[in-house]
Amino acid sequence: MKKRVVIVGGGIGGLSTAYNLRKITQELEITLISDRPYFGFTPSYPHLAMGWRKVEEITVPLGSLLPKFGIDFVNERAERIDPDGCKVFTESGREIGYDYLVIATGPRLVFEGEGVKENSVSICTVEHATEARKRFEEFCKDPGPVVVGALPGVSCFGPAYEYVLMIHRELVKRGIRRKVPITYITSEPYLGHLGLGGIGNSRRLMEDLFAEKDIRYITNVKVVGVERDKVVYEDLEGRAHEVPSRFTMIMPRFAGPDVVASAGEKVANPKNHMVIVNRCMQNPTYGNIYGVGVVVFLPPVEKTPVPTGTPKTGQMIEGMAKAVALNIVADIKGSRERYAPTLSAMCIADSGDEGVGFIANPVVPPREWVKSKRGKVVRWAKTAFEKYFLWKIKVPGEGPPHQSG
Amino acid sequence: MKKRVVIVGGGIGGLSTAYNLRKITQELEITLISDRPYFGFTPSYPHLAMGWRKVEEITVPLGSLLPKFGIDFVNERAERIDPDGCKVFTESGREIGYDYLVIATGPRLVFEGEGVKENSVSICTVEHATEARKRFEEFCKDPGPVVVGALPGVSCFGPAYEYVLMIHRELVKRGIRRKVPITYITSEPYLGHLGLGGIGNSRRLMEDLFAEKDIRYITNVKVVGVERDKVVYEDLEGRAHEVPSRFTMIMPRFAGPDVVASAGEKVANPKNHMVIVNRCMQNPTYGNIYGVGVVVFLPPVEKTPVPTGTPKTGQMIEGMAKAVALNIVADIKGSRERYAPTLSAMCIADSGDEGVGFIANPVVPPREWVKSKRGKVVRWAKTAFEKYFLWKIKVPGEGPPHQSG
Amino acid sequence: MKKRVVIVGGGIGGLSTAYNLRKITQELEITLISDRPYFGFTPSYPHLAMGWRKVEEITVPLGSLLPKFGIDFVNERAERIDPDGCKVFTESGREIGYDYLVIATGPRLVFEGEGVKENSVSICTVEHATEARKRFEEFCKDPGPVVVGALPGVSCFGPAYEYVLMIHRELVKRGIRRKVPITYITSEPYLGHLGLGGIGNSRRLMEDLFAEKDIRYITNVKVVGVERDKVVYEDLEGRAHEVPSRFTMIMPRFAGPDVVASAGEKVANPKNHMVIVNRCMQNPTYGNIYGVGVVVFLPPVEKTPVPTGTPKTGQMIEGMAKAVALNIVADIKGSRERYAPTLSAMCIADSGDEGVGFIANPVVPPREWVKSKRGKVVRWAKTAFEKYFLWKIKVPGEGPPHQSG
Repeated sequence: MKKRVVIVGGGIGGLSTAYNLRKITQELEITLISDRPYFGFTPSYPHLAMGWRKVEEITVPLGSLLPKFGIDFVNERAERIDPDGCKVFTESGREIGYDYLVIATGPRLVFEGEGVKENSVSICTVEHATEARKRFEEFCKDPGPVVVGALPGVSCFGPAYEYVLMIHRELVKRGIRRKVPITYITSEPYLGHLGLGGIGNSRRLMEDLFAEKDIRYITNVKVVGVERDKVVYEDLEGRAHEVPSRFTMIMPRFAGPDVVASAGEKVANPKNHMVIVNRCMQNPTYGNIYGVGVVVFLPPVEKTPVPTGTPKTGQMIEGMAKAVALNIVADIKGSRERYAPTLSAMCIADSGDEGVGFIANPVVPPREWVKSKRGKVVRWAKTAFEKYFLWKIKVPGEGPPHQSG
Repeated sequence: MKKRVVIVGGGIGGLSTAYNLRKITQELEITLISDRPYFGFTPSYPHLAMGWRKVEEITVPLGSLLPKFGIDFVNERAERIDPDGCKVFTESGREIGYDYLVIATGPRLVFEGEGVKENSVSICTVEHATEARKRFEEFCKDPGPVVVGALPGVSCFGPAYEYVLMIHRELVKRGIRRKVPITYITSEPYLGHLGLGGIGNSRRLMEDLFAEKDIRYITNVKVVGVERDKVVYEDLEGRAHEVPSRFTMIMPRFAGPDVVASAGEKVANPKNHMVIVNRCMQNPTYGNIYGVGVVVFLPPVEKTPVPTGTPKTGQMIEGMAKAVALNIVADIKGSRERYAPTLSAMCIADSGDEGVGFIANPVVPPREWVKSKRGKVVRWAKTAFEKYFLWKIKVPGEGPPHQSG
Repeated sequence: MKKRVVIVGGGIGGLSTAYNLRKITQELEITLISDRPYFGFTPSYPHLAMGWRKVEEITVPLGSLLPKFGIDFVNERAERIDPDGCKVFTESGREIGYDYLVIATGPRLVFEGEGVKENSVSICTVEHATEARKRFEEFCKDPGPVVVGALPGVSCFGPAYEYVLMIHRELVKRGIRRKVPITYITSEPYLGHLGLGGIGNSRRLMEDLFAEKDIRYITNVKVVGVERDKVVYEDLEGRAHEVPSRFTMIMPRFAGPDVVASAGEKVANPKNHMVIVNRCMQNPTYGNIYGVGVVVFLPPVEKTPVPTGTPKTGQMIEGMAKAVALNIVADIKGSRERYAPTLSAMCIADSGDEGVGFIANPVVPPREWVKSKRGKVVRWAKTAFEKYFLWKIKVPGEGPPHQSG
């Protein structure tokens, strides 16, 4: 009888795992559970928030797509995992048994701080980005100060950098830049830290970029609240300060969603409910449970005065997905070979007229090499990645995407 | 009857206003009052001090020039303004009535601190620069340490940067650079601040430039005195320090001259006697009085630990002059349209073999864009601006200069 | 009767002096005393330590070489100098009289601190570099953290920078870079200080280079000990810290060897036994004694919180050698002309795939000019210098090398 792999989550991690499995073997049943009926290309959500992309350009309906590759799609919220019974329960009460479980849900967004959720926009989901776009249009009719930033504990700073650069560019295009003081506020100890202790000369590069574009920055602080006309933050001594803002975007902290927590403390890290895995992305207690993507727990690259986390980028997640697929197939075949992905981080921010990109290889120091680049070609690289990825998952004739990472 | 516009001051501001008015309309009497018999191209005074220009290369006699354009020239010192009676009194007791008054006197130079005036040279007037040249020649016969800097409250740092770079270059040419430790000392909180909170990467650019040319720098301090062999300064805690110097140039603070003060507190800012104007360069109390150029009061771009002011650069002053001319003509015609100049700052320092330049647009943040550039082409740009400006005011066949700024 | 010049030391300084003297005149007896039977090209010792050069590629036997140029070679250790009797005594008891003495012994290496000598490798002699290579090979079989650094009082930081960059490069080539955290630890107040107060933008350049190659750095500290698995250092407040290390190279402080001390306090600086000379490299007390190379005492370029010294680089030493030769010949001829070398410093570090180089001219500020450059061409320049220098001292048909410096 064919083994069944159940994948919870339909983002880059879940989809890449499913496609990789199917590419390696037809001798498997694959079920993908997701409450969202579509795949969304997360790295382009800032573009959506800016009105530079439409929803249909960066999403793909899963219901018509997955069956083409022989992947069952269950469009429901997964509610509970029973790791001992090897079952997943969905919101409708459906019970789905598995031989192997891949948790790739993506994060639960934690908007800590008073008024943060209410008074700042977010660019972390299609719905949030769509709402952000609407609010930005209103803001432009009567502009004032803008603040973009990141809460303590944030692991994903790239979108904040990208969004603040985009806002600058958009305001210049609209001829109202000079009415808008822009501030970037962050838990990073310095500009360009990125939760990574910096990548090569990322600090200098970002400082130059921000100076050139007249974006002020406040680093090494905790944002503790957002009001309608200001952002409140604390310095390391606990003193409160504020910076005026009429349009605010603050990146939330990422945690594991409830369905991960439901699997118990051996699967979900008690502090943040993220999936506990070893170097091969396998849970140490339940060998048939794997984690892929943002929901996986990685320790911080370094301790920072205000906590920060390690980012998980698109191509890093592809690497995880490929390793998990190989490890599941190896296990089924009785082979003892296991694959540990090289977790390298590639961050690219598209600022509208140019781009700035960094690669850290591997993500956790000591690093073998790092690269940083700024210019139009970096912007094209980001756009090319988006188009290529979306084309690969949509065109059945070409087969599912193959990862090299 | 034709309206009469009286302009006090014959520098870039006064001359540009006169020429702009004449270009727009012949239906005006224009009188220009200046105690100096010539126009001097201020941005080239450092070159004069260095012996790289002769006086006749950068000055133009006004007595023969202005009448060609139908502008009356009164070569006397304006002594008093009666804003209620609409009259200007000159040193000879002459009384000149006006319908519109444009104050473009340039600054009164304030050499605060013990011995500053006696023991340091200045490059702010033709006479000062000529004296500085003489003293520099003597210095070169028996060289020692050099200090170039700026007093607290200075708004115009560009000439100090330019002059210190020129001195470096000239000493290398003369083969005595290695006998001369050069120090730049300033009220700016950091190198490249320029009274502007920096322009893009101006800090990094100037730090690199100074490091390359072995020019030491002391920032964020108050120069309080100059002796024959040293410069005395205080740090933020009020502690006194000194740096040896055998040749010193310290930029003075700019204030409004007595003739502005004589117009009373509604025209002259009580603290510094500079002309109070609104965004359209018009005095809020006396609607027929305008201010143009360095004598106009602009608030500091940002508060700095040691006070600094906002610079007014050549092309910014041209913008003011154009707006004032348009506003006067609009007022005469009974139109309610008013023009507010975009105050962008372009600073270029010619270091002899190359140049370094910055543009901030606008000068007061948030800025839409900034540029910085270093190289030979920047030097040529500065020289080209000098030649073009002087040619335009001298060649009658071509008509007065037209400003685009 | 021909005058006799005795040169103690057979490195770049001793050999260059001998060749320069012979080039100028045949009317001199020249005796060179050295305990080492070969000339070694010191700047390439880091390459030896890395296995990138073989001993025979960068050394030349002196016994067969010097007689070709009419230079007597005494292959013995010089043990005592009698400056009043104008004699040098060797270890075998031989007594060699001189008319002129040139001290070019090179340094005595001072490995201060507990365990520094035992637990760290050195790259300062052929034997040390050979041993370092062996230990590095062992280390690579079971890699861990690496520390490269410099003790308080070190004057020669170039080899430490070069070696740490080489280790990075070699580990990347071997595919084990990601297992090795690399730390550079130094008495310099900041990266790129080099004992020279920096050279132009050397700080920024080295910070960028280290960031790119993920080499961490600890500056402004005193290394006080090396254990088998860590390096112990003190900060400016005297607090002790440690950094893990399984392979350590710490540059020693340079002092004068015992043979210099034996000449008494008028020849040997009491604090460090280095040779006391004036600007013309001549001892002020004994006018027939000269110093050349690393053994000469130069005051620090600037006082640093942790002491550092002024480096003497290959081409600076060539300049000293040439001046000394000219001064000796002038003295013999009864001329009163004396030559003072321009002590400019050229530091080049070859990092394996590229190089980084700095020139300070002169070495003691104020400097007339400085240059810094990074790239493949810099690496080629270093290799070319090595090949050229070794070719020039080996090929008799071409005559001894001629210095332009």
